[in-house]
Amino acid sequence: MKISIIGVGLIGGSIALKLKKKGIVDFIYGIDNNNEHLSEALNLKIIDAKVNLEYGIKNSDLVILAIPVDAARKLLPDVLDLISENQTVMDAGSTKSGIVNAVKNHPKRSRFVAFHPMWGTENSGPASAVSESFSGKAGVICNKEQSDKDALNLVEKIVESLDMHLIYMNAEDHDVHTAYISHISHITSYALANTVLEKEREEETIFQLASSGFSSTVRLAKSHPEMWVPIFKQNKENVLDVLNEHIFQLKKFKAALEKENFEYLEELILNANKIRGILDKK
Amino acid sequence: MKISIIGVGLIGGSIALKLKKKGIVDFIYGIDNNNEHLSEALNLKIIDAKVNLEYGIKNSDLVILAIPVDAARKLLPDVLDLISENQTVMDAGSTKSGIVNAVKNHPKRSRFVAFHPMWGTENSGPASAVSESFSGKAGVICNKEQSDKDALNLVEKIVESLDMHLIYMNAEDHDVHTAYISHISHITSYALANTVLEKEREEETIFQLASSGFSSTVRLAKSHPEMWVPIFKQNKENVLDVLNEHIFQLKKFKAALEKENFEYLEELILNANKIRGILDKK
Repeated sequence: MKISIIGVGLIGGSIALKLKKKGIVDFIYGIDNNNEHLSEALNLKIIDAKVNLEYGIKNSDLVILAIPVDAARKLLPDVLDLISENQTVMDAGSTKSGIVNAVKNHPKRSRFVAFHPMWGTENSGPASAVSESFSGKAGVICNKEQSDKDALNLVEKIVESLDMHLIYMNAEDHDVHTAYISHISHITSYALANTVLEKEREEETIFQLASSGFSSTVRLAKSHPEMWVPIFKQNKENVLDVLNEHIFQLKKFKAALEKENFEYLEELILNANKIRGILDKK
Repeated sequence: MKISIIGVGLIGGSIALKLKKKGIVDFIYGIDNNNEHLSEALNLKIIDAKVNLEYGIKNSDLVILAIPVDAARKLLPDVLDLISENQTVMDAGSTKSGIVNAVKNHPKRSRFVAFHPMWGTENSGPASAVSESFSGKAGVICNKEQSDKDALNLVEKIVESLDMHLIYMNAEDHDVHTAYISHISHITSYALANTVLEKEREEETIFQLASSGFSSTVRLAKSHPEMWVPIFKQNKENVLDVLNEHIFQLKKFKAALEKENFEYLEELILNANKIRGILDKK
């Protein structure tokens, strides 16, 4: 099988490495606006050839979009225009309603499968790609009833080859859940970094004292705006809902401290501790 | 050298393991209100004997307090009452003004060295102790001018044996900096866990979708209230300052989203990205 990967960054690159390792693809065309990334991906043997969009699409059984969600939503209709009825297109974006709505009336909608691998890091670019990135993580396919059965089966095979566990979900539900489980973590992390940068003027002290706890909480604050602004934009309503709740929850801690109500503070912490039971099921 | 460790949990246990490994101590007396922890620590060879407070103190060159900060502040004057002029006491608490003030007029104040190892995990108890926990982390000694030179030298030797890099700081400054760099991360994490638990009623979905990003941001939310309520209590003013700033920073993200001011959102994220430069110096 020959595939094209549009966007040879962290996600596209990691998918490429894994599919090659599994021997499920014979040849990978790389397509990217960033020519440096393309050359890097070629050097790293992530892709087998740098090509333009038309050439790559024409010669591939499967086209994978792994670019920021706003760019993917814009590009997908053009990609569908270019494919034939026996080719398949999938994406890997973190929001799903936008892209699904963008092609809902496209005559070749059924050749598209909406996909989101629940994995990422604060790094970007092909040099950050790792073949085992997705192993054991959730791979979500949205609105599967809108895809042709053979297209769906192909993408299912890809997700299994990534060693992910498959979940099916409605695009709207997906965007609500990811607002809670992924998007809000990023906002919290960004805001925490800004808090520390604003108030702790002594950079040297941050550097010297930063513990593993701090590092893990602000790790996501290193994530690039090129990826995250479009996600927040497309999932604005859900993210705002969760952000409002999060501010409300922080105000409970503030009130407990201000009123020196340490029983209430303990209650809030004990409630938060319940997350252990849920996460440790893993 | 013989030492007593009061509190054979995560921190006390990890200190014990490392000092034994380094060969700097010959015998460790374990003292703990929790008899199960004591037996566990003995079985794990973290300590060499379970003893009571008086016996341990009487027979040790160095006494290390590794209990919650409120308990340490209460117990330290009693421990100082019991020691002779050639014994040394150190603590390992996350707040320093409280404990330093509690003994500032004690006749044996100069035998005490206020210490804080900048390391911890969301786990607790002797079974969580690991000998290499502290390696490469910051070890802060506060108000060193209030300690006798030989007591200070002994604790410096201990900190070096833990493979930590030594920092000297004023207790008040310490409490301001740790509010930014450690305490606020915990509140953020707790509030984030409560947000998700409140709004995401489908626990199974959290469990299935939870990505590494989410797990790292809420990791600290697993931390126990027995340790953290006393820290927030003792560092209330500083923690409230930082918490107010953090809520203010979150509101900037909220405003940017509500007004669909995505240039501003990008600016906020780019500013947060600066944390990478500071953390990656490490």
